[in-house]
Amino acid sequence: MENCIFCKIANGVIPSATVYEDDDFRAILDIAPAHKGHVLLLPKNHFDNLLCADDDIAAKALPIVKRIANALKTVTGCDGINVLQNNGTAAGQSVFHLHIHIIPRYEGDGILPVWDQGSYADGEAAEWAAKIASALE
Amino acid sequence: MENCIFCKIANGVIPSATVYEDDDFRAILDIAPAHKGHVLLLPKNHFDNLLCADDDIAAKALPIVKRIANALKTVTGCDGINVLQNNGTAAGQSVFHLHIHIIPRYEGDGILPVWDQGSYADGEAAEWAAKIASALE
Repeated sequence: MENCIFCKIANGVIPSATVYEDDDFRAILDIAPAHKGHVLLLPKNHFDNLLCADDDIAAKALPIVKRIANALKTVTGCDGINVLQNNGTAAGQSVFHLHIHIIPRYEGDGILPVWDQGSYADGEAAEWAAKIASALE
Repeated sequence: MENCIFCKIANGVIPSATVYEDDDFRAILDIAPAHKGHVLLLPKNHFDNLLCADDDIAAKALPIVKRIANALKTVTGCDGINVLQNNGTAAGQSVFHLHIHIIPRYEGDGILPVWDQGSYADGEAAEWAAKIASALE
């Protein structure tokens, strides 16, 4: 898509620190990393986010994320890894081309603190589950 | 795996508010949600996390996540959605059976604040990228 910086990076029009490339994807270093080694996996075709991505791209992505996560663990010696994919400004998405963050984590680093945990009243979770199930396409 | 609560939930030994089920997966409501409608996708087979998951399970997961995310958007009217998968205690994993969070988000809700962004010195990103690329299996 014209004027999409991640289209240009994924397709090599703009150079990047590339970790991985195949016919469908490029994985690059995030230039503003949570920790060094923080990777972004980008499809070469444009999708604003996961909600509108082709299923075959979604299917190919996670095995690649797994490979990169294992490589990151080897290289960084990190204690853990987050895989994060944001859809929409409210979810922290800032570039509207599907990307998956692969983030090395270290004990006590304070990145991605756990949210305040809510709860459901009796029977409420079953009602929510039924509503979501009936909205599946 | 014996004594794994998510094995028991995924395989229906312990009941749950189920949103989706197929031969390989069950998606349930997180009982301590970031927001109501917060879903966890669990494989029925046990993997501690994504790093050691079978590739076919990894490949099947994200198209299901996409379907559930779209259903969540319809049902909740949320402004955005995070897909989050934590590997290791340092990354916020608390149950050691692979699971993927699908979290509805609302403008200004303060969940998953963006991390302090680092940077690379000249040439440093290229060195990191080369190290990670060479560690890929």
